[in-house]
Amino acid sequence: MGKGGMSDGDHADRCCGEAINGDVQQENMAAWLLGVKNLKIQPYKLPNLGPHDVRVRLKAVGICGSDVHHFKNMRCVDFIVKEPMVIGHECAGIIEEVGSQVEDLVPGDRVALEPGISCKRCNLCKQGRYNLCRKMKFFGSPPNNGCLANQVVHPGDLCFKLPDNVSLEEGAMCEPLSVGIHACRRANVCQETNVLVVGAGPIGLVTLLAARAFGAPRIVIADVNDERLLIAKSLGADEVVKVSTNIEDVAEEVAKIQKVLENGVDVTFDCAGFNKTITTALSATRPGGKVCLVGMGQREMTLPLATREIDVIGIFRYQNTWPLCLEFLRSGKIDVKPLITHRFGFSQKEVEEAFETSARGGNAIKVMFNL
Amino acid sequence: MGKGGMSDGDHADRCCGEAINGDVQQENMAAWLLGVKNLKIQPYKLPNLGPHDVRVRLKAVGICGSDVHHFKNMRCVDFIVKEPMVIGHECAGIIEEVGSQVEDLVPGDRVALEPGISCKRCNLCKQGRYNLCRKMKFFGSPPNNGCLANQVVHPGDLCFKLPDNVSLEEGAMCEPLSVGIHACRRANVCQETNVLVVGAGPIGLVTLLAARAFGAPRIVIADVNDERLLIAKSLGADEVVKVSTNIEDVAEEVAKIQKVLENGVDVTFDCAGFNKTITTALSATRPGGKVCLVGMGQREMTLPLATREIDVIGIFRYQNTWPLCLEFLRSGKIDVKPLITHRFGFSQKEVEEAFETSARGGNAIKVMFNL
Amino acid sequence: MGKGGMSDGDHADRCCGEAINGDVQQENMAAWLLGVKNLKIQPYKLPNLGPHDVRVRLKAVGICGSDVHHFKNMRCVDFIVKEPMVIGHECAGIIEEVGSQVEDLVPGDRVALEPGISCKRCNLCKQGRYNLCRKMKFFGSPPNNGCLANQVVHPGDLCFKLPDNVSLEEGAMCEPLSVGIHACRRANVCQETNVLVVGAGPIGLVTLLAARAFGAPRIVIADVNDERLLIAKSLGADEVVKVSTNIEDVAEEVAKIQKVLENGVDVTFDCAGFNKTITTALSATRPGGKVCLVGMGQREMTLPLATREIDVIGIFRYQNTWPLCLEFLRSGKIDVKPLITHRFGFSQKEVEEAFETSARGGNAIKVMFNL
Amino acid sequence: MGKGGMSDGDHADRCCGEAINGDVQQENMAAWLLGVKNLKIQPYKLPNLGPHDVRVRLKAVGICGSDVHHFKNMRCVDFIVKEPMVIGHECAGIIEEVGSQVEDLVPGDRVALEPGISCKRCNLCKQGRYNLCRKMKFFGSPPNNGCLANQVVHPGDLCFKLPDNVSLEEGAMCEPLSVGIHACRRANVCQETNVLVVGAGPIGLVTLLAARAFGAPRIVIADVNDERLLIAKSLGADEVVKVSTNIEDVAEEVAKIQKVLENGVDVTFDCAGFNKTITTALSATRPGGKVCLVGMGQREMTLPLATREIDVIGIFRYQNTWPLCLEFLRSGKIDVKPLITHRFGFSQKEVEEAFETSARGGNAIKVMFNL
Repeated sequence: MGKGGMSDGDHADRCCGEAINGDVQQENMAAWLLGVKNLKIQPYKLPNLGPHDVRVRLKAVGICGSDVHHFKNMRCVDFIVKEPMVIGHECAGIIEEVGSQVEDLVPGDRVALEPGISCKRCNLCKQGRYNLCRKMKFFGSPPNNGCLANQVVHPGDLCFKLPDNVSLEEGAMCEPLSVGIHACRRANVCQETNVLVVGAGPIGLVTLLAARAFGAPRIVIADVNDERLLIAKSLGADEVVKVSTNIEDVAEEVAKIQKVLENGVDVTFDCAGFNKTITTALSATRPGGKVCLVGMGQREMTLPLATREIDVIGIFRYQNTWPLCLEFLRSGKIDVKPLITHRFGFSQKEVEEAFETSARGGNAIKVMFNL
Repeated sequence: MGKGGMSDGDHADRCCGEAINGDVQQENMAAWLLGVKNLKIQPYKLPNLGPHDVRVRLKAVGICGSDVHHFKNMRCVDFIVKEPMVIGHECAGIIEEVGSQVEDLVPGDRVALEPGISCKRCNLCKQGRYNLCRKMKFFGSPPNNGCLANQVVHPGDLCFKLPDNVSLEEGAMCEPLSVGIHACRRANVCQETNVLVVGAGPIGLVTLLAARAFGAPRIVIADVNDERLLIAKSLGADEVVKVSTNIEDVAEEVAKIQKVLENGVDVTFDCAGFNKTITTALSATRPGGKVCLVGMGQREMTLPLATREIDVIGIFRYQNTWPLCLEFLRSGKIDVKPLITHRFGFSQKEVEEAFETSARGGNAIKVMFNL
Repeated sequence: MGKGGMSDGDHADRCCGEAINGDVQQENMAAWLLGVKNLKIQPYKLPNLGPHDVRVRLKAVGICGSDVHHFKNMRCVDFIVKEPMVIGHECAGIIEEVGSQVEDLVPGDRVALEPGISCKRCNLCKQGRYNLCRKMKFFGSPPNNGCLANQVVHPGDLCFKLPDNVSLEEGAMCEPLSVGIHACRRANVCQETNVLVVGAGPIGLVTLLAARAFGAPRIVIADVNDERLLIAKSLGADEVVKVSTNIEDVAEEVAKIQKVLENGVDVTFDCAGFNKTITTALSATRPGGKVCLVGMGQREMTLPLATREIDVIGIFRYQNTWPLCLEFLRSGKIDVKPLITHRFGFSQKEVEEAFETSARGGNAIKVMFNL
Repeated sequence: MGKGGMSDGDHADRCCGEAINGDVQQENMAAWLLGVKNLKIQPYKLPNLGPHDVRVRLKAVGICGSDVHHFKNMRCVDFIVKEPMVIGHECAGIIEEVGSQVEDLVPGDRVALEPGISCKRCNLCKQGRYNLCRKMKFFGSPPNNGCLANQVVHPGDLCFKLPDNVSLEEGAMCEPLSVGIHACRRANVCQETNVLVVGAGPIGLVTLLAARAFGAPRIVIADVNDERLLIAKSLGADEVVKVSTNIEDVAEEVAKIQKVLENGVDVTFDCAGFNKTITTALSATRPGGKVCLVGMGQREMTLPLATREIDVIGIFRYQNTWPLCLEFLRSGKIDVKPLITHRFGFSQKEVEEAFETSARGGNAIKVMFNL
């Protein structure tokens, strides 16, 4: 490792750690994605601790849909895995060491980690829209290493102390929950917002939970899958609507949805990302309402855009969501525990099994590692 | 006075006047659309003057693209002309009579007319988004009669006094200008907004003028037509970019646009409404920027939506724009006179000629009647 | 009654009914304020029913602090009672008759009444800030008659149907609750807002209830009165802080408050309106926070204004709050029933007794008439 | 070089340079405030250049009112000068050296410097309100050294390249101009905002210039001083109103102001900070308008607060204003040159003379050093 970089302690300028060739450091191990469906637990040398950094021993790491995309295709949308990369970005753990300038954290603190390190110097960062920072270094998004590892070094200001009544697994759930919360914030969901969620997968479900916590009085969720709708109902959806993948059925399904939400749909969250679902979203929403694109599916879509001031709002990750997630978990306004359907340990065999489970979908919502 | 409707003096509940069969009233004449390309000047009986209404003698009436659609097809998007209808909705005139409760206007006042009468009682009206009122009665939008007539009766609160240095023709231009102003407001155009306008037709040009008046420091306009680009340049565009209708050229054209606006496009106004133009709009806009759909063209489009928090904002007419239009015209921040390329009188022959001129497009931007 | 006025059916232009001298109409009676502490039940002739009006038989009418001001002083702030006036503005009842143009209501509907009739034509009305309309005609605010009567005629769009599980008394409570809701909206109270309420009188208590329903995670309430603090606690305040009327104690009390809300007070509602309370409000609020002036007390105050971007937000009545009030009552997010401490019938004796009870204060929060 | 601190290159954690005792480094000299009215040019040892820092040779430094407060009283509001401190915070210069990670700047670049280094890690920084950061290190605000020096080391992201047609002196003016711009942004000044500025001192004048550049159609400025009003007029005020310091005259003066701005004052900027001026500001503003407190004068004031939803907005420094300042200067929408009334070189004698000139007030608006 060259001079300079490591000594400057400015985490945002460095990669998030690097692989160790031959050399052996303590015992830090990580799950490296080496090729399609090829994950290996191998040593992972941590970077030096900068003055604002902390070293965290991870205890809970969840698998996200984008992790599965990387696992299966070595890419997710525009992000391509070209070199071995530690996978994972949903995590919580216990502080082991803090940098010289870290004031609010001490070893032993239980923390949830926000995975993206923004540059803090560009216009978007300075204006508070750091999720759009072009220099973002994000756990497990190539070429940055992720957090499915025994330990990581991370900026202290991205580690948030867990309230006493919030578990480490719940802490790891802050990441997916943040997507729903950011979407609700961007769409201004409040006590007067009738909500439609299209898609009852993991993202649809956290969006449902978030919308409820933001006070939405009536929430309808639509999906093709009866089992998922059952789960959505149990998580608090007021009504569920079974839909098909057939674009011809949109009008009929919209009528069904609008019958349930008689005052009209104020905000629709598309959490699926297909032609069909966005068409449903646009058609079901009232004049002056909003459609929020949370899911990412097809890249090109044919859509009915002749709308009456319906704003289509794009969502990319999140900003400043961890404190609110933790408040929701602390107060019980959101319970994420029912979303965790499978648990695995951190062995070579279990890592493979866990990713296969998540990739299969089926009744798996959130697959969680306990380290 | 007849039963019910006519006696209640509440203009919002009435149609905007009615045709006269056989009966003859003073001398009020109007241009009735009777069928495809069939416009006839015929008598038009005005409704009684309600307490909040004024009677206006029209002096300037412009032809809008939607009027041309009605003229050519007896429809515009979802609005279908099923019965004879007085055409026209861009107008200014002189007050002849005021209702008993009208306080701010007197006969002789020169006024510009906002053409849409909202219900004032629904949620959207009470919240200030009256342009989305479902009960809107809008000049020359079926089934409501329009304003290409000697006189109309209209609510006083929709008639705005012209400043001394603003002509009646300029007053009639408040209507198309309002579209650009509403779009700039909805997209939050300000002193820091780099703007791209796609399409240099009448709507593109008023949007250009509005964006300039809202302080946009750099405005690029794109069109397929060299002549229109020349006009756009003369109206104040900083740069013009010639584009094709070929979707394959988007990437190259976007590169050209982004080279001109080196800090990126903050807001793009699509004033054309085609697949190609909206694709250009979405592709050219920076992460976190906005695309504003001002033009209405195709109803279904295939679009690249995997964007980074680019919001797509729909525009439908306008709200509370006349005072600002008149302020811009008064101060000289906007000069609409160069947009008026053709003028006609109000005779049967000239009405036909005017609509044919407007329908041909070519070098006609705004065709204006002087009554 | 002369021609014109009554036939135009435009309620906003009329007074809200008039006293009957000698003449006797059906059996409609109202509580007329004739002088200081001089309330008499006398006949009240209703205006004719306009096409957009409804006639309502009142069933529940509450007494508000401003009614008590009128009762005791023949004035409230700038509003002076110069002629006999029907008192009261918090009410709910049952529709008896609807005007020809009313579409959403039928006789028998149980409704809560929004008491202010705005002009719907001025800039502020058209922009949705109708509470600031200069031509507002407001129940029981001189010179407009109020609603402590058997019946009133009122615009249909200001009568909101009660959900089945909401009582008429709760409907009447929408009025005071609206003040709290409008304040929370203006101050952007949400799931992340730590709230301090200064003053635990009726307005402080509805603001507490509203802030809770808007999701405020932590609410502290301060008052001089132990009993009121007890009630506030029972209504859901997280902590209560006993304060004095002594301005010297501010620093110490602020320290106490800030100890409770360790992350700082984001929004403070001053519901008392005294020098001391606003000083506390300004001092306790974090940099970048908001102080919302809900109560109206002294007109001139000496304040420490050298603040760090703390915005001071004025509150005047409300706009578009009834639907949200009813949603909160329907869903149980707000329970106003504990606020109703005293009930009276509508006889001369009981009216006097009720106002005396409300004027005494003491343990009376809301005094309600059942008609 | 000591351990840790100096090597970490994280400028935000360090002081802004330190005094040199005995030791002599190159030739860097600075104006040190040693006591009341005691300024001495003495050597100033620069900190090492961090990877994100640049070294700037200063060419233009302006004197601000707060500098004068420090000079005269060793304090400004709550900031007290306890140790020798380099004075000054308005500056521009030429880049001499850039840190290893600086990408956008090269030696020779002409830049304007934003003087405040925020922590970038607290909630307020991450939300974009970094001006409220509690760890802010601000040029010439005790205990941080300022910029009246030959050279400073400063974070590269706070140095903004000057457009070719903007001089270094104009660059230094970005700092005071930023106050006006931040105030206009916070008050949402736009093309429809009638503005009243109370106080025609340097802050009042930059607020006037900013409001004009934000599009305010009508601006009235009030002051006690005829000469200042003359300057305000020459800088573009539409009308000026002479006022007194006598609180009894408020009503009459407000009437005068409202006569000029017949549609009412939408936003008032108080740029003086006295009882009298804020009372005028509150009284003159229309219902629903805003009063923005830009000036800091008395700490306690007696005010008429019974307002109709007039929001009182506090202003503290600014955020993200330099790019807009430079755009306004580049485009000519703002010309700050007339504000620079006096110029001095950087010698002991001239520094003293310059501060005396600025302290005297009189016809001095901005006193500028050319280094």
